[in-house]
Order: sequence, then structure tokens, then C-alpha cells
Amino acid sequence: MSVIRNILNSRSKRNGNFFIQLQNILGYKPKNISIFRKAFTHRSMNIKDSKGNAINYERLEFLGDAMLSAVIASHLFQEVPSGDEGYLTKMRSKVVSREHLNELGKELNLIDLVESKIPAGQFGDNIHGNLFEALVGAIFLDKGYKYCERFIYKRVITPHVDIEQLEGKVISYKSLLIEWCQKEKKIFGYNVYEDTGNDDVRHFSVKLSIDDKIVAKARATSKKKAEEKASKRAFFAFQNKISKMI
Amino acid sequence: MSVIRNILNSRSKRNGNFFIQLQNILGYKPKNISIFRKAFTHRSMNIKDSKGNAINYERLEFLGDAMLSAVIASHLFQEVPSGDEGYLTKMRSKVVSREHLNELGKELNLIDLVESKIPAGQFGDNIHGNLFEALVGAIFLDKGYKYCERFIYKRVITPHVDIEQLEGKVISYKSLLIEWCQKEKKIFGYNVYEDTGNDDVRHFSVKLSIDDKIVAKARATSKKKAEEKASKRAFFAFQNKISKMI
Repeated sequence: MSVIRNILNSRSKRNGNFFIQLQNILGYKPKNISIFRKAFTHRSMNIKDSKGNAINYERLEFLGDAMLSAVIASHLFQEVPSGDEGYLTKMRSKVVSREHLNELGKELNLIDLVESKIPAGQFGDNIHGNLFEALVGAIFLDKGYKYCERFIYKRVITPHVDIEQLEGKVISYKSLLIEWCQKEKKIFGYNVYEDTGNDDVRHFSVKLSIDDKIVAKARATSKKKAEEKASKRAFFAFQNKISKMI
Repeated sequence: MSVIRNILNSRSKRNGNFFIQLQNILGYKPKNISIFRKAFTHRSMNIKDSKGNAINYERLEFLGDAMLSAVIASHLFQEVPSGDEGYLTKMRSKVVSREHLNELGKELNLIDLVESKIPAGQFGDNIHGNLFEALVGAIFLDKGYKYCERFIYKRVITPHVDIEQLEGKVISYKSLLIEWCQKEKKIFGYNVYEDTGNDDVRHFSVKLSIDDKIVAKARATSKKKAEEKASKRAFFAFQNKISKMI
């Protein structure tokens, strides 16, 4: 226990308040903080519990991966009633791809919470996705399936899972919208500005105007994402007009 | 709807009361019976809903597989604190192996509930496992994760998941027990008799005696399984004495 306390102390010094940062990410107050400590302990720390079992996030990755797969499966099942087994499997593997998990971990800046003997710069890209999986596993252990599902909806499904995009039918709503504006001789503009507010992670907001009228707003962790989000909203607002073009 | 009702009617005629049989298997009263009808409808029936989506159990297999994987992952994670990611992955794949899923489906006699245009005798072995997965998916849709987890514990984990056996450390408790009895010059006997009672599926009970004293009882769907279960119980009762031998 004292070993763990020491880790927390050093972590607190380096990263400010682990607990507060974690709570911001989770959106709720964690019950069992030691599970989350484990979720951010790299194997290089070489810590063992009293029974000699390694304390690091690797086992939690296994659990988080299983929970992600289950929640995404259930979402796709209900969202795409026409998709057969093969379709559902393919769509899920796109959502939980290594690349996508890495993006999710980066977005939450999880690496900032890691306790490790290896300098952060020496980690490969996969650590971001691994930490994301471990975090999901920790949430499941801490609060059960329902909370875990809620977190996955908030951080993965709602902001990132777009069936049309996954299917490759729409590569980018922005390019679709621009194409339509050009065809229809409309003047469009993306007004992007930083809008981090009280968030830990940098955020950007965008106002999308068409013919000098603001038609959609959005906020996200990168300029590109904010623009895409606003374009998607505008796309659905003008769907009837635009869809003739596709 | 009327198509579905006809199916149910013909199913009722052939298989007695679908609802009652299902309730026996589930251990609870299903809320949404139409999900379970789907879970037992083979693609050869060629039924579609009003939107043209196929009504059969194949999509439910995908969902059930995901839920099985999640529940087994969580069980193994908590049960084997010393197992690393690779170990946990390997153990899980043994539990959810095609062969094992087929056994689970056979044990519950799920094929008896299937509505199909193909004669039951012409199905391959995999239909048993597929139906089992579909049933798990249907339970998840009907009642959520907690019920689904409870069902998996009742039908898979409690009766069948034995870490030592999965690891291959113990191939059979019966052979271990016999070996010990022979070494210790003890007289043993397995008294097996049919004991189906009110169950749908045939059951057998066994009394295991050592030196004319009954040391364990068990009940299962085959003679072999009942003997193994009783042997396992006796093994744990005599663990301290037997374990010196391993």
C-alpha cells in the first residue's frame, strides 16, 4: 500500500491532481481509485502486489478490449438492422482499430497520467490505445457495465461512430459540403477559434457560414474535427438538397 | 406479424409449448418473446420484416458472441489475478471454442426449438453453438447485461469453467481420484442412475462412495459429466490429502 501511495505522491507532483484529472475524463467520481492507479501504471515501474502479481495496466487492456467490443457490438446491432453478421464484424473492427483507439487515447491525453520509468517520448503510438482500453477496463471494474457503456457512448460512439463514414460512403462531410456549395455557387466559410474553456484538453470551436449566414456550429479537440462536425451538422440540415448530388 | 404467429403455432404443435420450454432454459420469464422467436428461426425460413430485413438468428449470434466474450473475460480477469493478457486470451478462447459452444447448445437441446425448412438431421454440428450464441444475444436484448451475465454463469461458468482443467493441469478429476484411491488402497464406487425429474433434458445422478461411505453426489446431463462433477467435489473435499500426489 505504501508503495502505491508513493507512486500517487510522485504522480501528484508531476501531473497535478491525478484524482481531479481522472474525474474530468470519467465524468463521475471514481469509487475505487486504486484500480485507476493500476490503469496508469506502466510495466517498467516493476511493481508487484503482496502475492507477487504484477501491478500494471496490461491485464486491464484485455478487460477493456472485451467491454469495448461488447458495447460497440450492441450499438451496431441496434443501429444497423439490415447489417448481417459479416457486416457487423467488419464495422466493429473499424471502430476498435488500433489506429482509432490510439486517437481516442490521445484525445484524452491519457499519457499525461502514466507512471513509468521510460520517458514519455520513447513510447510508441500504441500506448495511447492501450491506456484507453485499460481505462475502459478500470471503469467496468469500478462501476459495472452500465457506467462503462455510458463512458463508451460519451467518448467513442457519440463523437466518432458514424455508420456512413465507417461504410466509406461518405469520406468527409466537409468535402461533400464544399462540393455542393461550389456547384450551387454559394459562398461558404469556416471560422475557427480556440475554445478550451475549463477542459483539460485543448478544444476548438467553429462557425460554418453559407452565404453569410451561420448554418452550423461545432466544438472538438482539433480544428479538423470541429470543421468536420460542423459540416456534418450542416449536411443533415440541408440533406434533402444535398443528397440529390450523391 | 401473422407470419410470425403462424410460425409460433406450427412450432407449438411440433414442440409443445415454446414459451414454457424457453422459460425452463432461461430460468426467468422472457419479456419480449419475439426476440427469442428470432433466436430460433433458421435462415431457410426466409422470413423478412416489413422493411425487408431478414428475420433469423444470425445477427443475434454476433451479439451473443460479444456478450459471452465480455462476461468470460471479466470472470477470468477476476479469477486468475496472476494471469497476463496472453494467458487470459488463451483461456477465454478455450471456453468459447466452437466445440465447447456446440456442447452447450446440445446440453440445452436448443435444436428442438428451431424453426427451419431443413430437416434437423441435416444440420452440421455448429448449429448447436450458433443457437447458444443467439440465445445469449437474445437474453441481452431482452433483459440487459446483468441477466445475460447471470445466465452465462449458470449455464457456462459454474458448471463448465474450471481453470485447472482449462490449463490442462487436471485432465480429469475422476482419473485423479481413482489414482489416489488405488494408491491409498481405498475402495471406491460410482453409483449412477437416471434422474431427469421435471427437466426437459435427460439428467443423471451419481453417488460416489469411498470405503462404503458416500463422499459426494452430483447431477448432470450425461453419466460421464455427473461422475466428473462428483469426482471434482470429492477432490476438493480431500484436497489436502490428494494434492500431495500431484
